[in-house]
Amino acid sequence: MRPDLTIDTEKVAADLKAFVRDYVEGADAAGVVLGLSGGLDSATAACVAVGALGPPHVWPLILPYRTSSTESRRDAERVADALRLQAAVLDVTAQVDAYFGAVGEASPLRVGNKVARERMSVLYDQAKSRGALVLGTGNRTERLLGYTTLWGDMACDLAPLGGLFKTQVRMLARALGVPKEIIGKPPTADLWPGQTDEDELGLSYETADELLHLLVDRRLAQRDIVAHGYDREVVRRVRKLMRRTAHKRRLPPSPSPPWRRPA
Amino acid sequence: MRPDLTIDTEKVAADLKAFVRDYVEGADAAGVVLGLSGGLDSATAACVAVGALGPPHVWPLILPYRTSSTESRRDAERVADALRLQAAVLDVTAQVDAYFGAVGEASPLRVGNKVARERMSVLYDQAKSRGALVLGTGNRTERLLGYTTLWGDMACDLAPLGGLFKTQVRMLARALGVPKEIIGKPPTADLWPGQTDEDELGLSYETADELLHLLVDRRLAQRDIVAHGYDREVVRRVRKLMRRTAHKRRLPPSPSPPWRRPA
Repeated sequence: MRPDLTIDTEKVAADLKAFVRDYVEGADAAGVVLGLSGGLDSATAACVAVGALGPPHVWPLILPYRTSSTESRRDAERVADALRLQAAVLDVTAQVDAYFGAVGEASPLRVGNKVARERMSVLYDQAKSRGALVLGTGNRTERLLGYTTLWGDMACDLAPLGGLFKTQVRMLARALGVPKEIIGKPPTADLWPGQTDEDELGLSYETADELLHLLVDRRLAQRDIVAHGYDREVVRRVRKLMRRTAHKRRLPPSPSPPWRRPA
Repeated sequence: MRPDLTIDTEKVAADLKAFVRDYVEGADAAGVVLGLSGGLDSATAACVAVGALGPPHVWPLILPYRTSSTESRRDAERVADALRLQAAVLDVTAQVDAYFGAVGEASPLRVGNKVARERMSVLYDQAKSRGALVLGTGNRTERLLGYTTLWGDMACDLAPLGGLFKTQVRMLARALGVPKEIIGKPPTADLWPGQTDEDELGLSYETADELLHLLVDRRLAQRDIVAHGYDREVVRRVRKLMRRTAHKRRLPPSPSPPWRRPA
């Protein structure tokens, strides 16, 4: 039997808005800056932020790289329009290409990571210039699978969607009235043309979310999950992704004090 | 009475080398990449890394920005030479200036943060290209005072010196044979000409370390510390720095699951 991950969208929306409002007020900040990718998560996070703070306190940025698709750009603008926000566009190509021009060509993965970290760096600078915080847009699924760039998209001041699985973000997005073109399209990190998350992960978000729920929230053993009818290899793959990316979910380790000199 | 923060440098050196060796082996990595600033912390971290892994597994990078001092560069090269390492130089000016050229001039603080994050991003890319990890060089004093750039110099894979106060790093450096020119010079983030940490923090590292020890390790109340003979305003300042930078010592917060739909 498959677990039911349905959420009470009304309650979640209210909780997340209160979280954003309280955190921004507590930090005495002017609002939030966030990157709009044209995808579901950033659209939903923007919606939550506008509901929490009002449009004048939400500054969306579109941060394309030269390989970013024009559809992503158009969708990001669609989200801003729907929320009556004016999105600023800051292309990160010059910075990223200046670096790879100096060190030589690199794999799409290396370029993707550099772009993700450059976006973080731009978001923080733009936030600083406004006395604002950086609103993260990551969800619980990508966090648990480690499908993020360390100190890139995962780096922010607050992450309202970080407790929601991807499929739950989609439920929330529907309830909040996120444009249906955004809700319907296949999730992609848009780090290279044609990329989709589900192809790259090798599993659907629906399956990933169910398995993560069974593994993390219900703490079931692999064999019990397989007994529910899930493929053993897929369960193994999800567990392996979690285990191999544990370092992305903690701060850098240091040996602990104190050390005393001999008496 | 002032607390004695003297460490058993022999034991600490052995512990830190074991920590680095175990962590790098556990991650199945080829070694570590680190940024050499010409300062005490990175020199000491490099020394620990070479002791742990051997010179062929330590890749030092010098990452100057156009305002970085030539003395810093010379000192970084001095450290590399003393350890028989070949340091690569990757200037980050083009990337940082491409950004500020597009958004307009900014304060030295904003530029300093952008440079620190660019260095992080370069270190991660260079580590990736070698199958190596990023060795952080931060110490416990700057971590507790929040005297770091969030997702900049504090972002790394492992931070061997993160449990040592700045004055303890200096003791360790002496024991490890770090060049005396490096040990003797005033600590600086070198984010703008003439900057020194102690001027900017408004207190000496000796006092900061003692107060942090009394506040954090001994959990003394402010009035008890003042009774030890410390200036009330200085104690207050250290506590305020700690409190105001708590967000730099944790991962971004998210509201917690689960939310259930109504039954």
